[in-house]
Amino acid sequence: MDERIRDHARTLVDWSARVERGDDVVVSVGEDAHDLAVAVCAELGERGASVVTTYASEELDRAYLRAHDGDFDASDAELALYERADVVLRLGGPRNTTAMADVSGDSQAAYARANQAAREARLDTRWVSTVHPTRALAQQAGMAFDEYRDFVYGAVLRDWESLAAEMAQLKELLDAGSEVRLVTERDAHPDTDLTMAVEGRVAVNSAASVAYDSHNLPSGEVFTAPFATEGEVFFDVPMTLQGRRVRNVWLSFESGEVVDFSAETNEDVLADVLDTDAGAKRLGELGVGMNRGIDRFTDNVLFDEKMGDTVHLALGRAYRSNFRDGEEDEANDSAVHVDMITDVSERSRIEIDGDVIQRNGRFRWEPGFETA
Amino acid sequence: MDERIRDHARTLVDWSARVERGDDVVVSVGEDAHDLAVAVCAELGERGASVVTTYASEELDRAYLRAHDGDFDASDAELALYERADVVLRLGGPRNTTAMADVSGDSQAAYARANQAAREARLDTRWVSTVHPTRALAQQAGMAFDEYRDFVYGAVLRDWESLAAEMAQLKELLDAGSEVRLVTERDAHPDTDLTMAVEGRVAVNSAASVAYDSHNLPSGEVFTAPFATEGEVFFDVPMTLQGRRVRNVWLSFESGEVVDFSAETNEDVLADVLDTDAGAKRLGELGVGMNRGIDRFTDNVLFDEKMGDTVHLALGRAYRSNFRDGEEDEANDSAVHVDMITDVSERSRIEIDGDVIQRNGRFRWEPGFETA
Repeated sequence: MDERIRDHARTLVDWSARVERGDDVVVSVGEDAHDLAVAVCAELGERGASVVTTYASEELDRAYLRAHDGDFDASDAELALYERADVVLRLGGPRNTTAMADVSGDSQAAYARANQAAREARLDTRWVSTVHPTRALAQQAGMAFDEYRDFVYGAVLRDWESLAAEMAQLKELLDAGSEVRLVTERDAHPDTDLTMAVEGRVAVNSAASVAYDSHNLPSGEVFTAPFATEGEVFFDVPMTLQGRRVRNVWLSFESGEVVDFSAETNEDVLADVLDTDAGAKRLGELGVGMNRGIDRFTDNVLFDEKMGDTVHLALGRAYRSNFRDGEEDEANDSAVHVDMITDVSERSRIEIDGDVIQRNGRFRWEPGFETA
Repeated sequence: MDERIRDHARTLVDWSARVERGDDVVVSVGEDAHDLAVAVCAELGERGASVVTTYASEELDRAYLRAHDGDFDASDAELALYERADVVLRLGGPRNTTAMADVSGDSQAAYARANQAAREARLDTRWVSTVHPTRALAQQAGMAFDEYRDFVYGAVLRDWESLAAEMAQLKELLDAGSEVRLVTERDAHPDTDLTMAVEGRVAVNSAASVAYDSHNLPSGEVFTAPFATEGEVFFDVPMTLQGRRVRNVWLSFESGEVVDFSAETNEDVLADVLDTDAGAKRLGELGVGMNRGIDRFTDNVLFDEKMGDTVHLALGRAYRSNFRDGEEDEANDSAVHVDMITDVSERSRIEIDGDVIQRNGRFRWEPGFETA
């Protein structure tokens, strides 16, 4: 077995999920995630946790959903499983990332609604999602399989403790600050100059561990919930929305709301998103990607939004974790949460209350910041 | 998809498990049983059952057991899952039938003990076990993969309703009878002449359906719990005991107990079995294989013991289903249940209270019985 698979399993079980003796662990195994599951089971055995394994396959979901008349009953058995679990480890590993292409969105939504209680019970555990590199994911990323494996392990096998310490510095600045300004200059594209209020919000240090209220491995971002957004922003990293590639999105904000927009390809998809509801025109998230193990776009949001030297903004729903106790009602509400990413590695700066905290991809605590 | 996979799924869901709208179904997917699982999920969707899928892999079990210190905790989550389930469909499909070869029997037994409550909850559902043909199973059977698939579907895709009706005739004879006599003549091997009491016992018509208290697909046998066994019996179908092949077993009974024995290969394994406890020297089962879709030994007890024109006897534990209510305490008790199979297709007869009910593989209700 590739030693990196064992390292991945160890990182997941120890750093991310903090598994201890006696924990009741559900391991969800994706279609091609078997090898990672073997390594995870060895780690769980060593720690004296108990384990039950589920199988996650979009091909099975597709067959079930297409055959069903749409009047779904929840699975009480699944609900009971997650209600009793302490930890849920989801090992993604699709064989075909478009396996659900011919299942209607209505059917998927109705099924999700029917199973909401089980989903909430699962989110109430120390859950962590990760992926085992598969050929299907490599293909979606436009990469060779070996190349993609190197990419995934480069992103996952970080020194998380030291990255968490570094990210804590940004969280501290965001928590203490009132206003964030993002500035980028581009030649062939529009410039960005956007200000967002963050006063009173709580930034999350998303360090790929439940100990940091972070449930993805890899992670590596600090995010908060902005409001009162003003100005213009251009996103140069491509994205896939509703199964279609959208490129070079430009948004203009006034009083927190999108008042103008454009996209070079599939602009109508962007228009649809903005039309969803009132909250879809407002930002729900401002995130700063700080995982430099992720150095390229792979069309997988688990990785893309954590890319080092990027900033992402999400239209739509805000995370409750960015609000102080009792203030969760202030969170932007929407049926959507759409992340859009911009490169800040050059001709860019991030300011908090007028102080530059990152310039051309260098944070102010990093060597070379002054001359960046 | 091979149309036979759909037929297999339909037989499993309709005939075997009798799934109805609203049933809470757990589908246990073996390592290489994905394709059958897809077909089963389509059938479950069509019927409006709810579904949760688990993953069964001996490679995962091996990794877990070898890493664990042996002081196992039960999984409460797994227990809760089976307690709420109405139906459990186990789709076996190993990639390697010897995946557990280097896990100690002690460790496996301790783990099984820790999870006894979950196992009992599972056995308390309308559970059915079947297998999806895999290369590993073909290899164990000594067959080519395509050849093995033909074999499996020949065994599974029967006209179960008419086989159940035929088997009902044998059940009726066994239930009404007092003594069964089995006689076979062999040239190079010992002859068989064995009598067993069956008075007061209840034969099970094992027709691959929960409606018949039968939980294997394929099935196709009628079995009861004999006692007061007298005489000698020779088993010409090979068997695998404790991972070792045992051939040409001969047993001699007096007053229900084995008083002498031999085997041509690995006789010491047979001696070990007989030494387990007092019940291991007595018969727990007399079964008559009636599935003529199974026409050869494939080293898989799910198939072997249902082979048409065979009789099997098991040393050890009897099934409670062979006893009338309140008489279950009379069942032979033992830690083992070891099936041994003998060919009755030629120079053989089965008698009940002196009447020949099968001669040279022909039952008395079949054409050609008189001249067989």
